[in-house]
Amino acid sequence: MSGDEVFVTPIIKEILEKYRVIWAIGHASALMGWDLEVYMPPAGVKERSAASAELGVLSQKLLLDPEFVSLVEKASEAELANDYERGLVRVLKREIDKMRKIPPEVLREFIKTTGEAQVVWREAKQKSDFSLFKPYLEKIVDLERKIAEYLGYEEHPYDALLDIYEEGVRVRDLDPLFDKLESELRKVIEKVLSEGRYPQWHPLEDLAYRKDDLKELNLATLRLLGYPLGERARLDESAHPFTQSIGINDVRITTRYEGKDFKRSYLAVIHEFGHALYELQIDERLAMTPLASGVSLGIHESQSRFWENIIGRSKAFVTTVYPLIEKYLPFVSGYGPEEVFLYFNVVRPSLIRVEADEVTYNMHIVLRYRLEKSLIEGSMEVSDLPSAWNDLMEKLLGIRPKNDAEGVLQDIHWSMGSIGYFPTYTLGTIAAAQIAEAIEKELGSLDEVIRAKEFGRIRTWLREKIHRWGATYPPKDLLRKAIGSEYSAEPFIKYIRSKYL
Amino acid sequence: MSGDEVFVTPIIKEILEKYRVIWAIGHASALMGWDLEVYMPPAGVKERSAASAELGVLSQKLLLDPEFVSLVEKASEAELANDYERGLVRVLKREIDKMRKIPPEVLREFIKTTGEAQVVWREAKQKSDFSLFKPYLEKIVDLERKIAEYLGYEEHPYDALLDIYEEGVRVRDLDPLFDKLESELRKVIEKVLSEGRYPQWHPLEDLAYRKDDLKELNLATLRLLGYPLGERARLDESAHPFTQSIGINDVRITTRYEGKDFKRSYLAVIHEFGHALYELQIDERLAMTPLASGVSLGIHESQSRFWENIIGRSKAFVTTVYPLIEKYLPFVSGYGPEEVFLYFNVVRPSLIRVEADEVTYNMHIVLRYRLEKSLIEGSMEVSDLPSAWNDLMEKLLGIRPKNDAEGVLQDIHWSMGSIGYFPTYTLGTIAAAQIAEAIEKELGSLDEVIRAKEFGRIRTWLREKIHRWGATYPPKDLLRKAIGSEYSAEPFIKYIRSKYL
Repeated sequence: MSGDEVFVTPIIKEILEKYRVIWAIGHASALMGWDLEVYMPPAGVKERSAASAELGVLSQKLLLDPEFVSLVEKASEAELANDYERGLVRVLKREIDKMRKIPPEVLREFIKTTGEAQVVWREAKQKSDFSLFKPYLEKIVDLERKIAEYLGYEEHPYDALLDIYEEGVRVRDLDPLFDKLESELRKVIEKVLSEGRYPQWHPLEDLAYRKDDLKELNLATLRLLGYPLGERARLDESAHPFTQSIGINDVRITTRYEGKDFKRSYLAVIHEFGHALYELQIDERLAMTPLASGVSLGIHESQSRFWENIIGRSKAFVTTVYPLIEKYLPFVSGYGPEEVFLYFNVVRPSLIRVEADEVTYNMHIVLRYRLEKSLIEGSMEVSDLPSAWNDLMEKLLGIRPKNDAEGVLQDIHWSMGSIGYFPTYTLGTIAAAQIAEAIEKELGSLDEVIRAKEFGRIRTWLREKIHRWGATYPPKDLLRKAIGSEYSAEPFIKYIRSKYL
Repeated sequence: MSGDEVFVTPIIKEILEKYRVIWAIGHASALMGWDLEVYMPPAGVKERSAASAELGVLSQKLLLDPEFVSLVEKASEAELANDYERGLVRVLKREIDKMRKIPPEVLREFIKTTGEAQVVWREAKQKSDFSLFKPYLEKIVDLERKIAEYLGYEEHPYDALLDIYEEGVRVRDLDPLFDKLESELRKVIEKVLSEGRYPQWHPLEDLAYRKDDLKELNLATLRLLGYPLGERARLDESAHPFTQSIGINDVRITTRYEGKDFKRSYLAVIHEFGHALYELQIDERLAMTPLASGVSLGIHESQSRFWENIIGRSKAFVTTVYPLIEKYLPFVSGYGPEEVFLYFNVVRPSLIRVEADEVTYNMHIVLRYRLEKSLIEGSMEVSDLPSAWNDLMEKLLGIRPKNDAEGVLQDIHWSMGSIGYFPTYTLGTIAAAQIAEAIEKELGSLDEVIRAKEFGRIRTWLREKIHRWGATYPPKDLLRKAIGSEYSAEPFIKYIRSKYL
């Protein structure tokens, strides 16, 4: 994590010196985003939005400054000293290319439309009325299709959008992946529901907690996992849990406290811890450079899912933290670790993605992937979306939304123009299982490591194989280097089968 | 506070459009400064400092952009529509001029020197060893004298530095002011100490409180005063109390909780409330412009001192909030309002400025003003400073520091290069009394308004006469408009005599 300077080639040093102010704007924007969700007085939103927009435009202007662009282009043809330098140029070229390919007026239109669409989406969801949101989504799909054309693709327009969130992943990879997941998960779900080994509901879901108690449990658990609270990291509260990296030595996670069903807050903390650890374990020598962040949403999600699902929902973990849970949440005592394990692993097909368990979750992504792809390739109209959603939901999970709020309107993502984003949730899920398999090959049974509370060994493995590199390698290369294979569903299917069947 | 657009002239609109990004950087920097003191994990300081420095340089670059400068210059010769527009041009020209007059290499040297000096000052203070700090202070004084020459002045080099913090105030104004204050305050102090009407120590100073209790009292008091907590404003905690305006609708104050002597935290909250109210009551139409801030440090301090001293330490106020104090701090009960009033108004000559009461406080400023002026005009050497400090302290307050830590090294200001800043504390103090006098002329006895809890009437007066204008008028003009006179010591002396004699 320390040692010699990694950036040595003069042109790279020059690029980094010029990049410093772009980094500073990013640092400020990250803090502004965090504060907006956590501490900002609500009336501050107008000024905050205006300031964020100004800084976004400014940052783009600096990135596209001809002098800077020509330096990056020169560097991309130069002999470079190491993988870090090559990664740096790759990341900057990607950013510059994407911005240069989309005409400013299209970008402006996109920002304006999605800004308005988010407001309308909120209202539409509240009223459960898709017709309000429909004209905005039509405009967004139209813009996204244009953007896909500007960005360019080889096989499928949706590839261009996927690549924004997960460098190098294509429809060609995802079609077979999601087909396979659908058929495998369908079998598992049927069996789990009919055999009753895992409950569809647990009494602990209804029990209320005192917020301060759960907060103490969350903090104690984070300390156990090795989160550097109070030195380099924070835990705060927000309406929706999230992680914000403000710097390599300043990473912040949040959770929420709803008053009952403590696993929702607790597992969110472990999930966000996974994201945070990734950012916290990046090589310090990459600080203040474009490499000082997780490389993609898929790899990032692999870290959060690994800690939340594979560690957090395991019997070994529940048994290990049970004394802590009992200490801070006295109402749990008497249930015992076995019951808490079942409570953490309730399997219940539900209409709402964010409430889904690990078995049914990916069906929600199969659904979104297929609908997005159809919209972008033009084989489906936005007006057909609500019924297509409901039909597919019924096919995948056997339940049908009664209204748009619990169907097509449930996610904010489309109103933000984030089409191509959802698949990264599944990529993260399957990569988490791949990583767990690779760790076990080296460290032996994860259960034993967990029971021995040797989380430091897991952290070290993740740091050395994945985290320290930041964005140096594209996701597929990083996976190959770390675990010897690209994204693959097999380990996840194996994991689910062995846990649930 | 609303109504028609105030900026109508095309060139002004053009300036404001270009200024928007400079404002956004200021918004981000304000948040970063606040966060640094309040929530940032300590290890984040290196990246935060680097980001702040980058944004500072960027903001200056944008302000000095030739196109922007020429717009401002053109505007300063154009026919403008109203006082707001004229104020806008005045403020921008001041900022641009100051930056353009100081050569970049001198500014860089100044930033570098003061950056190092603050670190050394901390060590020197801890070891109570002025000799460590001396070479840095010598360099700082030298640089400040250069800066004064670059900025220019008519009568005294110190005028150039004063003007940075308080537009238009000169040595010519301050010499007679501080002479008068010295002689008047000396008489009052002697009499107070000999007559014993106010105690030199109060038992409540030693009583411990539970932090959460005092926090509740602070919040309840802020609500009583009309602070828009949770909507447009916050109260947080930091090592040193301060106010940060992040936007017109996002103003944040802090206080500290030391565990005993609750008035230190409590009166700090009321002090910061005064600063915050100024920022919160600026005309919304000035938002995101250079006029959206208090006009000077002196006027700002008049607001905080008005609320802290004239309201907060009055018998009427103590009597009014006594039930609240008793409710949240049960250990106070039994003392009664009269004793709390005496506790709030202990008069005790002390060596440390920040612990001084309202009677002795300004003697600390007299001392700093005279020493600073001598250093800048070259009539005193830095090496003579410690003994000059101790001699003058003995002359003014009859006590003598035993070491440099409680003498010449006590304040951080000089290490930051803030020479010319201290006098604004006294300007604020005297203006607070002038304002109180003016309010009483219109609203009748302040005591009665306080006892009736009609703080909204005071807020409205302050808003209409002072706050709403932001930085539109220079401080002296603003005072003339608001109260019909410039800075004057008479009302303060009258106030102190009537309260303490």
